[in-house]
Amino acid sequence: MNRLAPERAARVVLSRVGEPGDPRLTGLVAELGAEEVLAALRRQGDAGDLGDDLAARLHQADPVVELEHAQRQGIRFVTPDDAEWPAALADLAHAPSLHERGGVPVGLWVKGPGRLDALLGQAVAVVGSRSATTYGASVAGEIGADLGRAGRTVVSGAAFGIDHAAHRGALAVDGPTVAVLACGVDRAYPAAHRRLLDYIAEVGAVVSEAAPGCAPTRIRFLARNRLIAAMSQGAVVVEAAIRSGALNTANWAAGLSRTLMGVPGPVTSAPSAGVHQLIRMRGALLVTDGAEVLEAVAPAGTHTLAPVQEPARKRDLLTAEQRQVLDAVPVQRGVGTAKIAQTAGLAPHRVEEALGDLRTAGFVEHASGRWRLAAQPSA
Amino acid sequence: MNRLAPERAARVVLSRVGEPGDPRLTGLVAELGAEEVLAALRRQGDAGDLGDDLAARLHQADPVVELEHAQRQGIRFVTPDDAEWPAALADLAHAPSLHERGGVPVGLWVKGPGRLDALLGQAVAVVGSRSATTYGASVAGEIGADLGRAGRTVVSGAAFGIDHAAHRGALAVDGPTVAVLACGVDRAYPAAHRRLLDYIAEVGAVVSEAAPGCAPTRIRFLARNRLIAAMSQGAVVVEAAIRSGALNTANWAAGLSRTLMGVPGPVTSAPSAGVHQLIRMRGALLVTDGAEVLEAVAPAGTHTLAPVQEPARKRDLLTAEQRQVLDAVPVQRGVGTAKIAQTAGLAPHRVEEALGDLRTAGFVEHASGRWRLAAQPSA
Repeated sequence: MNRLAPERAARVVLSRVGEPGDPRLTGLVAELGAEEVLAALRRQGDAGDLGDDLAARLHQADPVVELEHAQRQGIRFVTPDDAEWPAALADLAHAPSLHERGGVPVGLWVKGPGRLDALLGQAVAVVGSRSATTYGASVAGEIGADLGRAGRTVVSGAAFGIDHAAHRGALAVDGPTVAVLACGVDRAYPAAHRRLLDYIAEVGAVVSEAAPGCAPTRIRFLARNRLIAAMSQGAVVVEAAIRSGALNTANWAAGLSRTLMGVPGPVTSAPSAGVHQLIRMRGALLVTDGAEVLEAVAPAGTHTLAPVQEPARKRDLLTAEQRQVLDAVPVQRGVGTAKIAQTAGLAPHRVEEALGDLRTAGFVEHASGRWRLAAQPSA
Repeated sequence: MNRLAPERAARVVLSRVGEPGDPRLTGLVAELGAEEVLAALRRQGDAGDLGDDLAARLHQADPVVELEHAQRQGIRFVTPDDAEWPAALADLAHAPSLHERGGVPVGLWVKGPGRLDALLGQAVAVVGSRSATTYGASVAGEIGADLGRAGRTVVSGAAFGIDHAAHRGALAVDGPTVAVLACGVDRAYPAAHRRLLDYIAEVGAVVSEAAPGCAPTRIRFLARNRLIAAMSQGAVVVEAAIRSGALNTANWAAGLSRTLMGVPGPVTSAPSAGVHQLIRMRGALLVTDGAEVLEAVAPAGTHTLAPVQEPARKRDLLTAEQRQVLDAVPVQRGVGTAKIAQTAGLAPHRVEEALGDLRTAGFVEHASGRWRLAAQPSA
């Protein structure tokens, strides 16, 4: 570990002492590099310009010890200098801050066999309400599975409700999935998802901007949401009440020019109200299944869907006049041509002609000078 | 009745012998006037160019008798020359035909006290599936009532399901409503809606392009749908399966540049699939209640809705740092400033300051050098 590059070492320390997504920190690092920012902070600490505690932590944090400790838990630290760094995160450098969070993370703590660049080359965020309905969870699971089958990585936050269903949907079809946490990747939040997170860490990747051991605070969720949005080509919001964290992720997705999608639900269902607002007022694309999500995030010309249609019916091939005559033919008791002409409001010779065509096509039957609908009506 | 104008008389006859929305007929009448078209048809009939039956009906139809017969049933015939003719129907002259139907009707048969021009000055069509779900019917009823309360006329087709619910919603609040039928206004279709139609004819208007006595054939429904769209400033589709007549009305509304709106539903519900397609692919506006419908059809600047929001919370006024500190304060057992500073990752002197502010704002309590969340947390 003696060969630890100074820039990398500085990023470890900044990740440990800084707050995830603090835009002053990420901004300075983007401008000056981590090494210089760290040196400046230490000078301020020595001069007494920082709190005693932070100054002490700046000096005490040992990047070699941090990395060794992480490694023993199967956790690695990934920075923009690493080959597996997800290129999409660069977009955060220019996206507007939200809730005083923003910028490119100084590094990511990662647990799991998946390489981030590979996992996040074609990823879709599927997010939504923690208090999801069974409807929302079911749809999120289906979309997760559809994305998984198409080889798209499902990115979500491992929360209760929609997040859980989305990860599970992907895992059920052995699809790639990435959980992005607000706490350290050595912790399980929520605790009930310990096994889910362990499994994702076995087959995909669990990722956090917060150093191992960090607790999931509210502001870290806001910082985390920007990563979920930035790591994905598009974000699908499945259920979200008017004031839902998922809408924060949606705002990040919009600010990052990601494809923003929403799954509608009953207008009487509060967990769908935020999604309907996204579609109405934010221009989110209404999607109803995984195929529509894939179409929306695919390069032009791939995954194009034909509009859903009923199969064409023989009836569709009739002319308006033929349909008019057909509508005038009774179901049971047959009637003569004159009566049909009267009902249809057409001249008898036109009706004769149409009835002949309709008989050939199997729509009507003719017996003893009377017409009625065919017993086995054509589709 | 001797004073019956020749143009009006001709329109009565053409309405009786022609098919509603036959674009050849409506086109010729728009170009030449009804009198000339009728004269030409009679010449063709005399020359044997028309079927015997139609020729006979052309000669037999007596406009005075027709109008007297209608009047005895409380039915009047309204043409573009009448003051109550709804101006919006003129848009049909230039809209593209659909399913071989199109054009301005030669006249409308009307039953009811409402003047069409007054009723249809600010009207909204609410249409949808005959096989509506209870969800769809409930939402359609609410929207009908909201429109009624706002003095907007609900235009629909008196069919089972959504149409029924929309009319009922309007009637429940004594709102104006117009039923547009595919059959003569003296008939009840469906028969189960006889009382509904009688009631609408008492308080609003029942309207048809088809002459009294005419049966509701399939092609007449297509012709009827264009009138529902043309009479309204906007059309709301509440539920519609992929192959639903309501989508035909939606197509008319789009072709007539009416505001097209759709109410979403569960993506698992077939009766919502057509609506979702309208929103996805036809640019229909997603609406979730009557207020949103009113906003969409209102002149700019009126009926504007504030985005639905949760009431602002005191917490929203905190700075990021204050929130960070608040998140680190335990619920029950109090802790010291140093511990909070460590959890929050902030310098102790900053934490001191934030805790002071948070105490003033009522978020935290301080006792014996220990901090915990206030017992009655501030909203």
